[in-house]
Order: sequence, then C-alpha cells, then structure tokens
Amino acid sequence: MVPQVVRRLKRIFKCASQVNDISVEVVKPEIDFKDPDWKKHFQEDFDNRFRLPHLTDILDVKPRPTSFSLKSRGPLGDGNGAPMDTWYGYVNDDDRALLKVIKFASPNSAGAECIDPDCSWVEQWVHRAGPRKQIYYEPKEVKAAIVTCGGLCPGLNDVIRQIVFTLEKYGVKNIVGIQFGYRGFCDENLREVPLSHQVVQNINLAGGSLLGVSRGGPSISDIVDSIQAKAIDMLFVLGGNGTHAGANAIHDECCKRKMKVSVVGVPKTIDNDIQLMDKTFGFDTAVEEAQRAINSAYIEAESAYHGIGLVKLMGRSSGFIAMHASLSSGQIDICLIPEVPFKLEGPNGLLQHLEHLIKTKGKAVVCVAEGAGQELLQKSDATDASGNVVLGDIGVHMQQQIKRHFKYIGVPADVKYIDPTYMVRACRANASDAILCTVLGQNAVHGAFAGFSGITTGICNNHYVYLPIPEVVRSPRRVDSNSRMWHRCLTSTGQADFH
Amino acid sequence: MVPQVVRRLKRIFKCASQVNDISVEVVKPEIDFKDPDWKKHFQEDFDNRFRLPHLTDILDVKPRPTSFSLKSRGPLGDGNGAPMDTWYGYVNDDDRALLKVIKFASPNSAGAECIDPDCSWVEQWVHRAGPRKQIYYEPKEVKAAIVTCGGLCPGLNDVIRQIVFTLEKYGVKNIVGIQFGYRGFCDENLREVPLSHQVVQNINLAGGSLLGVSRGGPSISDIVDSIQAKAIDMLFVLGGNGTHAGANAIHDECCKRKMKVSVVGVPKTIDNDIQLMDKTFGFDTAVEEAQRAINSAYIEAESAYHGIGLVKLMGRSSGFIAMHASLSSGQIDICLIPEVPFKLEGPNGLLQHLEHLIKTKGKAVVCVAEGAGQELLQKSDATDASGNVVLGDIGVHMQQQIKRHFKYIGVPADVKYIDPTYMVRACRANASDAILCTVLGQNAVHGAFAGFSGITTGICNNHYVYLPIPEVVRSPRRVDSNSRMWHRCLTSTGQADFH
Amino acid sequence: MVPQVVRRLKRIFKCASQVNDISVEVVKPEIDFKDPDWKKHFQEDFDNRFRLPHLTDILDVKPRPTSFSLKSRGPLGDGNGAPMDTWYGYVNDDDRALLKVIKFASPNSAGAECIDPDCSWVEQWVHRAGPRKQIYYEPKEVKAAIVTCGGLCPGLNDVIRQIVFTLEKYGVKNIVGIQFGYRGFCDENLREVPLSHQVVQNINLAGGSLLGVSRGGPSISDIVDSIQAKAIDMLFVLGGNGTHAGANAIHDECCKRKMKVSVVGVPKTIDNDIQLMDKTFGFDTAVEEAQRAINSAYIEAESAYHGIGLVKLMGRSSGFIAMHASLSSGQIDICLIPEVPFKLEGPNGLLQHLEHLIKTKGKAVVCVAEGAGQELLQKSDATDASGNVVLGDIGVHMQQQIKRHFKYIGVPADVKYIDPTYMVRACRANASDAILCTVLGQNAVHGAFAGFSGITTGICNNHYVYLPIPEVVRSPRRVDSNSRMWHRCLTSTGQADFH
Amino acid sequence: MVPQVVRRLKRIFKCASQVNDISVEVVKPEIDFKDPDWKKHFQEDFDNRFRLPHLTDILDVKPRPTSFSLKSRGPLGDGNGAPMDTWYGYVNDDDRALLKVIKFASPNSAGAECIDPDCSWVEQWVHRAGPRKQIYYEPKEVKAAIVTCGGLCPGLNDVIRQIVFTLEKYGVKNIVGIQFGYRGFCDENLREVPLSHQVVQNINLAGGSLLGVSRGGPSISDIVDSIQAKAIDMLFVLGGNGTHAGANAIHDECCKRKMKVSVVGVPKTIDNDIQLMDKTFGFDTAVEEAQRAINSAYIEAESAYHGIGLVKLMGRSSGFIAMHASLSSGQIDICLIPEVPFKLEGPNGLLQHLEHLIKTKGKAVVCVAEGAGQELLQKSDATDASGNVVLGDIGVHMQQQIKRHFKYIGVPADVKYIDPTYMVRACRANASDAILCTVLGQNAVHGAFAGFSGITTGICNNHYVYLPIPEVVRSPRRVDSNSRMWHRCLTSTGQADFH
Repeated sequence: MVPQVVRRLKRIFKCASQVNDISVEVVKPEIDFKDPDWKKHFQEDFDNRFRLPHLTDILDVKPRPTSFSLKSRGPLGDGNGAPMDTWYGYVNDDDRALLKVIKFASPNSAGAECIDPDCSWVEQWVHRAGPRKQIYYEPKEVKAAIVTCGGLCPGLNDVIRQIVFTLEKYGVKNIVGIQFGYRGFCDENLREVPLSHQVVQNINLAGGSLLGVSRGGPSISDIVDSIQAKAIDMLFVLGGNGTHAGANAIHDECCKRKMKVSVVGVPKTIDNDIQLMDKTFGFDTAVEEAQRAINSAYIEAESAYHGIGLVKLMGRSSGFIAMHASLSSGQIDICLIPEVPFKLEGPNGLLQHLEHLIKTKGKAVVCVAEGAGQELLQKSDATDASGNVVLGDIGVHMQQQIKRHFKYIGVPADVKYIDPTYMVRACRANASDAILCTVLGQNAVHGAFAGFSGITTGICNNHYVYLPIPEVVRSPRRVDSNSRMWHRCLTSTGQADFH
Repeated sequence: MVPQVVRRLKRIFKCASQVNDISVEVVKPEIDFKDPDWKKHFQEDFDNRFRLPHLTDILDVKPRPTSFSLKSRGPLGDGNGAPMDTWYGYVNDDDRALLKVIKFASPNSAGAECIDPDCSWVEQWVHRAGPRKQIYYEPKEVKAAIVTCGGLCPGLNDVIRQIVFTLEKYGVKNIVGIQFGYRGFCDENLREVPLSHQVVQNINLAGGSLLGVSRGGPSISDIVDSIQAKAIDMLFVLGGNGTHAGANAIHDECCKRKMKVSVVGVPKTIDNDIQLMDKTFGFDTAVEEAQRAINSAYIEAESAYHGIGLVKLMGRSSGFIAMHASLSSGQIDICLIPEVPFKLEGPNGLLQHLEHLIKTKGKAVVCVAEGAGQELLQKSDATDASGNVVLGDIGVHMQQQIKRHFKYIGVPADVKYIDPTYMVRACRANASDAILCTVLGQNAVHGAFAGFSGITTGICNNHYVYLPIPEVVRSPRRVDSNSRMWHRCLTSTGQADFH
Repeated sequence: MVPQVVRRLKRIFKCASQVNDISVEVVKPEIDFKDPDWKKHFQEDFDNRFRLPHLTDILDVKPRPTSFSLKSRGPLGDGNGAPMDTWYGYVNDDDRALLKVIKFASPNSAGAECIDPDCSWVEQWVHRAGPRKQIYYEPKEVKAAIVTCGGLCPGLNDVIRQIVFTLEKYGVKNIVGIQFGYRGFCDENLREVPLSHQVVQNINLAGGSLLGVSRGGPSISDIVDSIQAKAIDMLFVLGGNGTHAGANAIHDECCKRKMKVSVVGVPKTIDNDIQLMDKTFGFDTAVEEAQRAINSAYIEAESAYHGIGLVKLMGRSSGFIAMHASLSSGQIDICLIPEVPFKLEGPNGLLQHLEHLIKTKGKAVVCVAEGAGQELLQKSDATDASGNVVLGDIGVHMQQQIKRHFKYIGVPADVKYIDPTYMVRACRANASDAILCTVLGQNAVHGAFAGFSGITTGICNNHYVYLPIPEVVRSPRRVDSNSRMWHRCLTSTGQADFH
Repeated sequence: MVPQVVRRLKRIFKCASQVNDISVEVVKPEIDFKDPDWKKHFQEDFDNRFRLPHLTDILDVKPRPTSFSLKSRGPLGDGNGAPMDTWYGYVNDDDRALLKVIKFASPNSAGAECIDPDCSWVEQWVHRAGPRKQIYYEPKEVKAAIVTCGGLCPGLNDVIRQIVFTLEKYGVKNIVGIQFGYRGFCDENLREVPLSHQVVQNINLAGGSLLGVSRGGPSISDIVDSIQAKAIDMLFVLGGNGTHAGANAIHDECCKRKMKVSVVGVPKTIDNDIQLMDKTFGFDTAVEEAQRAINSAYIEAESAYHGIGLVKLMGRSSGFIAMHASLSSGQIDICLIPEVPFKLEGPNGLLQHLEHLIKTKGKAVVCVAEGAGQELLQKSDATDASGNVVLGDIGVHMQQQIKRHFKYIGVPADVKYIDPTYMVRACRANASDAILCTVLGQNAVHGAFAGFSGITTGICNNHYVYLPIPEVVRSPRRVDSNSRMWHRCLTSTGQADFH
C-alpha cells in the first residue's frame, strides 16, 4: 500500500512550476507524521499559504463602508445608496469553506486523496467569496480595467458583462477594456475600449470576447509601466494557468512599487484544468457542444459498413472534456485522455480492441483528447523526422493508423474523423455556465473592493471562494485515473486498458 | 440577533411532515447549547439519523464478493469476472462526505445556516455512494424493477438506461419496467416491460419516460403484495418528495414482512426542491430550456411599444428554476418566487415598479414561478368567488392585472405572456444532466447490491452520497431569501422588495 | 362537375376587399368563354393589371446609368464605380416569370385551379425582380426610410440589414428607420433611427425588429405629410396584407401630390397568407420552431397514461403553419385549420375520433391553428354569454371540451396544452429564411431605384418577382382543401373529415 | 454576343456522361434555328425525351382502380377501402408542369439560359407527380424494397419512413430494406430488414440511414439476379447521380429480361447537384447546419488579433452549399466554389485581398467548397510531388498558404480552420427538408403503383414532378456564375474576381 500512497503524496506535493516562463513558487514544508501535532502544523501551514494577499500588506489604506447594497436600489429605495445595518447580505472576512470534504476510510478507497499514510481527514479552510461590509476604494475615483488572454472559451463575454455591471453597482464610472490580451497594454494601435452597461448589455448572446484575445505579450515590467501610465486601480484578468502566473507577477511587481492596484483573476480554461476548483467556466458548455460531434460520429459509424467514428476534443494536458463528453453521450466505445497512456499495437493494444468491436458490433466510436498519446507521436517523430506539425495531431495520426491497420488485416473499415474544436469553443455560454460566469464576475469585483490582490475566484465543493493565485497555478489539474469519475467513464465505454 | 437565530433554528428543526398522505416522521431531540458537549451529542444524533437502513437490520444475509469490476471486461480481460485485489475502485463503507462545508463567522453572514447562536460549525458526515467490495445478492437470481412516478422531467430515460446497464454489468438478467408509475403495480392492463441493453440503448436521445409516468396509485399494502407476487428483489423508484415518502413506506412494509427487497430512490424533481442536495437531475436542463422562453419574452418586449414580457416557469413551492433562469438569462427585470411574497398594488407594489420600468427603459421582462403570489390569488378567491380554475394561475392573473393597471392609468402597454412548461420538461437531458443521471443510476444499483434499502441517491457539495429517505423528504427544499444566490439574482434584476 | 368549377371560379374571381379599413379595389372584367379570343383578352387584361406602377407615370424623370455593380468593388476594382458594359448582371425590364406553371388536364385533377370550364392553361407573366441598368434616383441625394409594421416575424432584422447594405452599395448615405410601425411617423417621442452598415451588421443574429413594431397608426394623409416633412425619397414597408394596403394608399396619395417617392413593400406574414407567392419570410422558421412544441406534446402524450397533446399554432385565417408543421413533424394525429370546418360532437365528430385513438394507440396529438373552429366558439358565445375573452381561444376551448368529454364517458385522459406562439415568432430567421430575406431586401432596393412604386417583392415558382400591391392584397391566401399539400397532410395524420 | 450564346448552348447540350462507370447516353438532335418550325420540333423532341418509361412499354399489364384513398380511412370511413368517385384527389396522367418559367428578354439578362440566339421562351412540359386513379399492381402481392446508396444526407430516414407509410396505405404488407447500399444485394452477411409502420415510426428523429449506406457495389447483372431471386416488384433507390445511373441500368436490365419491376429513384445529394430540380433533400439542412461552423469561424476571426476564419464545406463539383451558406450567414468575406476558378498569388489574387481585409477590417472569414481550386492543388502536385493526401484538401492547402503568406510579409495572422463536414451531414432533417422528404417518399410510391419505372422524383419550380432518369443524370447541376444567386452572394461578400 505504501508505494501508492507515496505516489499520491508526490503528486500532491509537487511544489513549483514554470508557467509560460513566469515562475510561481510554492514552498511546502515536509511533514513529520510521527509528530502527534502534525495535523495542527499542517493546518497552520495551510492557513498561511491560503491567506489572501491584501493591499494593507503593503500600504496604509483605511476601509470605508461599502457602497454595494441591494436595498437602496430601484425607484422604491431610499436613494442615498447607504447600506442598511439590518441587511444580512455581506460575507464576513472570517467566513470559510472547506477544501476537502471527503473522509476516505482507507487509502485504497476509490479516488482517495491522502496526506498521511492513514488517509486522515484534515480541516483545510479557504476564504469565502462575496461582498464585504468594508471596502478599500472610493468607487467614484476608481479606474478599472479588464483583459482577456489565451484562447476563446464560452462565457468570456458573460464575465466581462458582469464585472462591468457590478462595478457600476458600486458606483465606478471609469471602466475600460484592454484589447487582445496582455498585448493590448503595449501595442500603440490598440486603444482602451470604454465599457458601460449599454456597451455590454447583450454581449453575452454571442460567443468570443468583446475585447479580443491573444497569447503571450509584453514583459511584466512593461505591463506594470502601462498600468501606472493608464492610472488603473483594479485589473481583472481572465485567463488560464499561464495568464494567472502573469497576473501574480503583475501583482508582485505592483506591490514592489507600492502601487495601490488590485489584481484579481477569473480562471478561464475550457479544459477545466485549474487546481482546487470544481470546474471552470466554459467547460460545461464545451461538453454540451461536444455532444453534436460525438453524435455525428456515432451516426456516421452506425450508418456505414464497419464504420469507425473518431472525435478529437480539447484537452492538452487534462482529459476532462473528453471524459465528461464521453460519459454524457453514452455513445463512446473508447475514450482516450492524456493522463492514461495507451498503445495502438499488440495483443492488448487499441487496434485489436477496435477489431473486436467491428466484429461484434459492426461499428465503433472513439473519443480522443488532443493531448492523449503524445508518446506515440514522439516515437513517430524520432523515426520520420521533420514535419512535426502534421504528426503532432493525435487525431490525424490515429485516423491514419486505424485505416492502415484495417487495410493490413484485409477488413473493410470506414473511418470518419471529426475535429470540432473551434465550433466547441466559439459558442456562447450555456445557462449553467452563464450563472457561473455571473457569480465569478460579481465576486471578482467584490474581491477587488475588499482590497485583495493576487487572488483568483472559483467554485469549490459547490461554494464560491477566493484563492491566492500561486496555489492554483502550481500545476494543471488532471484527471485522476483512480477516481470514481474515470471509473464511471470506463464503466460506460466498456473499454479495457490498452497496454 | 437572537430572533433571527431562532427563526433559522425553527426552520432547520421542523421535524415531521405529511407527504401525499404518507407520513414520514423525523424526530430530533432538543439541543441544550449550555451543555459543553452539545456538539458531540449533536453529531451522535446526526450519525444515528443518517445511518443507512440495511437488509441485515431485519434479515440474516451474508455478503459475497462483488461481481462488479472494470478490469474483467472487454476482449482483453481475464474473463472470469472476479474483482482483482489490486484494483482500488471500491468505496469503503466508512467513507463519508460532509454535509455542511461553510463555516459562518457570524449568524449575520449572508446565507448563514446556524445550529447554535454562535453559528458554530459542526462536522456532519453522510455516506459516500459507489460500488462496494461486498454485495448482498446473487446477481443471476435477482429480479429488478424500475418505476417512474409523477410528472415528466428531463433525464428519466437516462436514469432508466443507466440502471439497466449497471445491473447487467453486475450480471442481472431479469430486469423489468413498471408502467405509468405506482399505478402499474396493480392495473391489470399494464404489463411489465422487459428491459435490456438493447431496449434502452438509445432512449436517452428522446425526452419523456420509456415506462410512462403518472401520479398517485394503489395503497402501499397493494404495492407490496404486487412486489411479492412479482418476486421483485430490487425496486428502483424515480420520483419526487411524495414518491419517495411512498418508497420509504414500501421499504417499511417490506421490512415488516421480512422480505429481502432493496428499495432505492433516485430523486426526480425538476423544481430542485429536495433537501440536502446540490441539485436534482432535470433541473439544469429546465433552466437551459427556459432561456428560450425568456429570450422570446425579451425580444417581444423590446420590439413592442411599451412591451412587457411575462414568463411563467415551474416551481410550486420552490423558486429555484425561476431564480436560476433569471440569473442565467441576464434579461429579467423582475423575478418572483414562492418564498418571497409580493404585492401588486400600492406605492411599493410591483405594478408601480413596472410603470417605472416602462417610463425609463420602455420595456420590462418578468419571470414568475407558478407557486409565487398564491396569497394574491386566495385573496381574489375570497372576493370574486367561484371560478378558481382560471384564478389559480398566477401567470394569467398577473397578465390580466398588468393590462388592467396600464389601461387604468392610461399608458399603453403591450403584454405578452409565455408559459413554456411542457416544452421545458419534455425535452431530453442536456450533457450536464446526462452525467448526473448516469452517476445516480449507477449509484442506485451499487446501493441496492450493497444491501441498502429505504435510501436515496444524490449529489452533495459536488460529491455523490446515499441518504436515508426520511431525512430528505421531511420538507421540500426552498430558496433562502437571505442566501447569496437570491441576492445575486436581485443584483442582476435590480428589483426592490414589493411590499 | 360544373358546380365544382363554379365554386373554384368564384374563389379566384373574388375581386375587392377591405383591409384594415383601407380599401384596395381590383376590378376584373367578366370573361366570355365563347369568344374564341378570350385567352388573348384575358392575357391583355392580366398584363394590364400586373403592370408595375412607375414614377414616370406621374412625373417627368429621366433615367441615369446605375451605380450598382459588382465589378467595381474591392481593392482590386477600377475604383470609379462605373458599371461595366461587359457585365451581364442586370435584369431586363422585359424579363418575365410565369405565375401559373401547372397545366391541369382536367378540373378534377387534384388541386386544379381553373379559369375556364376546360381548365385551359393561359400564359400569365409577371415582372422579374432585380437590378436594372438604368436608375431613377441620384443615390447621393436619396433619403431612404424603413418601417416595420404588425406583429413580430422571424427575419425582420435580416430584411432591414439587407436593405441598408444594398442602399449603401448604390451609394445612399442617408438611411433612417421609422420606429414602431406607422406610429413612428407621427409620434413626437419617436425619433428617426440613423441606419448604416455598422448599426445593422449583426442585427440578424437576434429575433425581433431593431426598429420595433406596432399595429395601426395615423391616417394616410398624416403619414404622407410626415414623409414630405422628413423629405423621404424611398419608403420600404415591411408588413402583412393590411400594412400593404396602407402602403398602396400612401403610394396613391404621393402620386396625387406628385411627390417623387418610391413606396416598396416586403410582405411580412408568418402565416404565409399572401396571394401569388410561394412563401413569405419567417414562415419556414416558424414551421421549424413549431417542431419543438409538437415534439413536446408528443412526448407528453406518449409518457402519460391516455395522454393527449394539444398544440395551438398561428394562423388566423390560413392554416399553412399548422399544415406544414404537422406534415414535417410526422407526429400529429389530427390537424385542424380555419379552411376546413369541423365539429366536436356526434358520431363523426372529433371527440369520437379521439376516443378511438386513445383506445387503439393509447395517446393522441392534435395541432390546431388559432383561427380554426371559430364557428364553435361563436356558438358557445351565443349560449354561454359574457366571458368571450376565454372563449375566443380555440386551444383553451378544445382543452376544456376534451377534458369534459373524457370525464363524461368515464375514461381517464391526460390533456397537455401548449401555446408556443411568441417562442415561434420571436426567434431569429433560419438559414433558408435568411436567404429569402436577403434577396427580398436587395430586390426591394433594386425596385425603388428602378423607379417603381406601389409594388411589393416576392418569390413565385421559385423565382423572384415584383407585383403591384393591389393584386396581392385583395384577399389573404388560404389553404386549398383540395390541394395535394392538404391531402398529404391528411395522408400523414390519418384523420377523417369531422362532420 | 454570339460567343456567350455559344458557350451557354454548349453547356446545355452536353449530352452523354459516364457516371461511376455506368453510361447514361442522352442524344439530342442539332437544332436548325433557321427552320421556322424549330420551336415545334424542339418541343416534340423534348416531349419525347421526357416521356416517362412505363411497364406497359414492355409488358402486357392491365390497370386496376387504385387502393389509395383518403376518404376510406379512420374509424369514421366506410371501411371498404374503395376510392370514391367524388373525391378529386388524383393527378391526371396528362397533368404537366413547366420546366422553364422565366422569359429572358435578352441573352444578356442576368442568368439567362437560352436555346436560340434570341433567347426565345419555349414551352417545356414535364410530368406532374402524385397518385393516379389507376394502378398497375395488386398491393397485397407486392414486395417492395428500399436501398440507400452513397454518403449520408439529412432526410434519408424521413424518405424511408414515408415510403413505408405510403406503401402500407396502398395495402402492401411485404416491405424490406436492403442494407448498406447496392452491396446489400449480394453480400450474404447482409439480410433484408423487414420494414413496417412500427419499425420506422420514429427513425426520422435521428440522422443517418436505418439501412446503412455505402458506395459502389456488385454489377448490374448481379443486382438484377438478386432482385429476381428475392422476387422484388418495386425497388426504391435513394442516391446521387451515380446511384441513379445505376438505377437506370437496373431498370434497363429488368426491361430486357421482361421483369415486372418498377425502379423509382429519389435523388439524394446534399450538394444539390441534380439537374432540373429546385433542390434536393438534405441541402436545406446542410446549409442550416453550416451556419454553426461559419459563425464559429466568424467569432474566432473577430476575437483574434488579425483573425482569419476558414470554413470548408461540401461540394465536389458544385458550390451550392458554400454559396447558400455564405449568403444566409451574412458573415463571409470570400466565398470560393468549384465553378469559379481563382488564384492565390499576384496583384489580383486572393492573398492580396486577404491582406486588404486584415488591414481595413482586422479580420476575414473565408468559405471554400471542397471542390474549389482543384487546379491549384494539381499545380502543387506537379512541383512538390509525393504527399498528395495532404495536398488534395483545398482547406488544408489554403490554411497553409495563408499562414505562409502572412509570415512572409511579416504581418501577424491567426488562421483558424474548420471542417464541419460530418457534423453537417449526419444530422436529422430540418422541418423544410422533412416536408420535402415526405412528399418525395409519397410520390415515389405513387409513381411505382402508376406503373412507371426508370424514373425519379423531384421538385421543379416549387411543384412536384417525375422525370426520366437519363435526363437528370447526364451531368451534375452546377452554379451558374452569371446567375443572380451568385451575384447576390458576391454582393453580400463584397469579393472581387481573383484572377
């Protein structure tokens, strides 16, 4: 049992990572499980690491009563905008939510995530998100900026819209969008886009990002220079692990320069690969949209003589979309994800299983995450050299290998390959994601007004929380091949291990 | 502060309820908060109440190794079906999940749910769902039955399908469907429907229920007679609070007769009004489908001169669908739910707010849950007498009152009323619900094989659990008007209190 | 055989009609079929009646070469905007399309439309739509206005958008929208909306009308005063029969005042009830969207014990939507339209057929057009008096009568009623309608520049044409109960005559 | 002007073609336009060529009164199934529909299709489809078979379903499906699939083909042997030009063997490339579904910095899908079809136009038919040799060339390529296509009972007709680059010629 525990510990305690050349270091002390007080020490360490960075850590700023209140609005309110003492709508700074809510009776329980060899449960509390009674900015003086980085993801416009709405509810007048990701800070051709209720009213009805997206961008130092020049007080950053690492570096640099700037992230990754969070926005929509592609592959496979449908879905390092889409469709025979290696050839290989399916069912439907089976491609690279653009595509590679194999064994097979990537990510958010985006957008603003910086917002065990950026970006979240969800997927597909 | 606490305590400690004439009693002891060990007592009481009823409580049955395993399947497995010791895919009987995962620093924190006046956090653990290493039935001898009760809900076919799949994976050959709810047990014209992989393969692609649904049915005693006559070993019941109360009564009667029958529920309520659960299946789909109606109302309101769009959504006693649909649409000006009373007339009434909206925005969109404002209808009844069929409909009532009001004040208003109820509930499950249904269906079967009876399956803080039926049906779950989610909805609509 | 012919003749020769208090008179001479030259006379009369009204009929205006050309556009063109002689892209003023393209061998042929007792085929040519080589306006001096009247219809925004695009392509800079139908001409609070490429770029992605719609409006004289005051040169009117009658009256009044104004209609009626046209825009989308409602009714009927699904669709005087939606769904057992009377009671009544369906199939699905069975409601009115608001609705009436009947005969029946009207008409145009709207919008502009006025645009035998307004609005187009399409519908439903 | 006329004449008079190795020869006499009676000769020739082949041409069969009638059905009919003399629901054998309904005043009119240099209009009548009063089979003795060939197309199941329904309405009991195209006639593993009302009731709700499809198959002689062995009386063939050529050859061979077999085609080509028909089923759905891909490309292009969206749509030899999808989306900047050659490089090339779009609009969206620009690929082949698998794909080729070009000129460009082919063709028919399929399926059966063979069914100028197979398969229908529809598309995109 020990080796397994060790493996898991290793995974959990991986501490530092390089994301897009920006280092986010998270140091964790070794735990001495023989120490009878190790739980207490662990909790202290945890509390310390998950404490939210605050403007007061570097500056001498005083809080004031919040301008955010529900009661004072509308034609019927008292109109003076002051919060009422009798309204119990604020989150207390000491409210907390639990990070781990399952007590595993044994390290061998399905999906067990253990700290110590006995798999003890330890309270790990993180900060609850929401509006505070006290804020650290004068709304009328605030200039807030929003930037969207990386690739498209359903819901970007929903988040932008809600950040603007909530800022206006606090009383902020000066809101701008930075165009095309971090690039917009330093490209002279890209102007700030003024944002207001009217501008963003209906942007959620279309996919994409009103502000445009792009990858990469100028140096942290240049970005902070630009923030200073533009006199931005709050910066809302929508992006994935790399973008968040950048946001944290911007926060650090602002601290260093003693600037009163709140940098707040909203995790944006369609792959759902952010640590500690139930899910990220856009993921649910992506799984929904992927159903069209899977159903098409199923119909093609069923209507063809010895039909094989092959669908490639997103997921560079994490197979969540492929796993969830396979599960929800109920039409997939084989699901392949980056976390579970497989081989094509040999008696236990995938190709032989396909043969079996064609012989018994007359058809097969395969779902592969884009990051799956990279080891197969690397091998090809080594032998075939050069053109790795084509070869880097596991979907195309599998299509070719399956065709080749069935031709070789002399059995007709009709392979249909579908890559719906852009159709999945360019669509508008579904209702469930729209709510998630709405809450994340509102909470991002609440967090900034509460004076936090270097934080991000998320949903954890169905409750909304704030987390310090370094803890969530230390590594991408991945599918646990021992988890119940992966087992459910295997139960649904009926596939075996391919090795 | 004390009164508030008391109010909340009262809500939490409401103990017994009559559901559809079937009484499910839940007795809870009074807590003496002055007792320094009250938390311990509370937890003991909680553990006791949430302990899962088991066949061994009444019968002398011995467990055997499970026939459920992923490794033994497919063309590549060893084929003997035996679970492998080295596979860590089972849930331990002592695995637990937490019921409450937020620590409120104060009873005045937004949405605080408190036990004691200090709002202390107390560990409350419930049973984790999933396959066990030991089972209490010989699969080849099992006859399993599925019954769907009440009204339609997206996902019924997904759950039926997955129960059949999972039963077959255990090795069960004899699976039947009971037609048209409990009615099917005793109506001679309604035969058992044989179910198998082939029958249910594609039923998830259409809405509705393969087995048909209906309300009401024969007496518990007659149902159990029928179960005995049909020699059913496992009964899977899909339905709401009333159906679950019935399932519990069937379980009780089976216990009384010392029958070896596992009765396992899967909560089915589109209204999402089941206690202790994050959400029930079909709810997410309903919120998604409701978007069409809301968007139509919005378009009609916007394109008409002084247009008012009015959408009635489901929710007899709970406003979750209306609240979530309003939030996700971002197009609603007024959301009305059963939990928050409102008045139409007067200076703070809804009609005056509508006037304000027409004057300032030129249009308004209203979303009302079917159970909202019932007090308005009762008042009308008292005065207008007779025709309560028409008056019982809050949507029609509001449509008439709004028209009447604007005619009275001499301002043109173009009211468009939409009731999408059947279009919302007759559609197929979306991807998110499809996964929920898949897991609930699988877990229901795992629970029955593990020997539990009188239980139901659900998702709690994003983890899957088993719960004893009485605890979940003691009262319908309702929207907390002090919760953050309701506040978010109000933030989005900008509406005030209408009283 | 003669009586049938006579009936048909009568239908065809109905000559004048009052539409919304605006009279459009169409006088046709009696034909003497004994005259050997009657065909020639008929054709001359036809050519005369279908000749397009033109500015030169009242004014002395000279044509100039068109500014519309495809070749001169883009970065690669010659840039001077002049049309090239070598481009064969213009429609000749003498191009014609045939109105009637079926030669019936006998008046008894299915759906025969006959002129004479022998059902001879006679050439009837109408004007082909499209850009002309010569135009009658200087584009830079033109002020064009667009107005949308009546109720919503999918595609309104597509037509608006395309009119703007095409006007700009001609070189028009001054384009405005009139708000909320004809009302916008004289309501001081309603300003002209400036329209341009940028304003209308994405309006087709949403349903509704950018300009707003409304019914009724000021007098013709006031409207023309306003046109004069606003100095409008071209008026594009989107609306149904009544709106077109108004447009024709505006055209007449402008002629009377010798104003150089082109009034061009685009028929907008979701009911598809415009004479001489294959279909009107929005109809195809409505039939598509109605499928959701019908499928929901089908699922509800099938899943309920003795379920009866009832769907009410649009169609005040014409049953096209109900007929086409029934046909395309393949799920309807009974389709009821205004053109085919039915009775509920008695041995051949609808209720007895429903009984039969419940007994044999266990379920039934009914589709009723809103204008069907009005004679049943009038009878009820006479006896029950008073509350005609409720009784005026054939859907609600049938729901009540079906419930009452099955209760009376002691057979359980579960009736589910769906009225999807606003959800059907508020949605965006589907692809097929988007193309229709695109072409109609373009042709409307081509027609105005060609100097026509008092015309409307349409599709006839799959080709685009211009027609003088009076001919298309003399009466609404209706389903011919002897047509093949209605027979196909009956073949699909299997229903009998209910009388 | 003469050269143009000559070109057009050439296109129209192309007379014989080899389709899938099956020759269908259509010989047309030269016309001497100086002969004053040339129109009469032309019409006689036309009537001759479009005369429908009939069983009585080869066999001595007698007609009997039809068993198809609407009046005798339902619980209320007379029940004896006899058609009633008083029902005017039949099509007369001499009913005709016009093939050409536009009279072009000049050969230079947009889209003019001319026979003689003056572009005279000549009456060309084809047979009207529908049920006849007399039939040539005893329904109870008929064995009917259905086969679906080629690739998938939305609506296949709708046609199958309706053929079965209509056959049953005539009284046919013995209906079978041939699996996987013509292959199913001779592959021993593929059994006949019994078809009935119950089997096909809901197949229209899913895409694909219940019977499976495949390309190619056994020889005509083997197929007819199989038809003889299986004792098939009516064969309904769903497929494209090649399949129809095969069906015609089967018909010829049956005639040769004096077999009483009716072979009736239903044109199935998503590309809409069948001569003489307004459209084929599935095309409308394909255009609708393509909107998702185009909108995704548009969103990606708009949200990216210098984004270029590239969508490849179906259309090997005809660009109808690309043209219609571009027109209906209104989001395409460049539409490329097989009928209009283009070049990439040079001052008038496509790449320079893209540069211009990026500079002025910041983005571009391109739609390319799969058969467009094949000459570019052949050129590449010649120079680059080898890997023609990759190069054969115009979409991939263009993606690479655009990337290469912008890299070369040093302007960033973000190219996103979408190939939605299988997602477009595997979906179910939309409402419009469902009606088309319903009518075509019904008419196919009416045609077979009327004793025709070697015919196909279609819609022509919005009316349903029968056509002899050779006339429709002599060459694929193509987009006329002088047609108004292509000009409308160019008007919408604003693109120039790229050469």
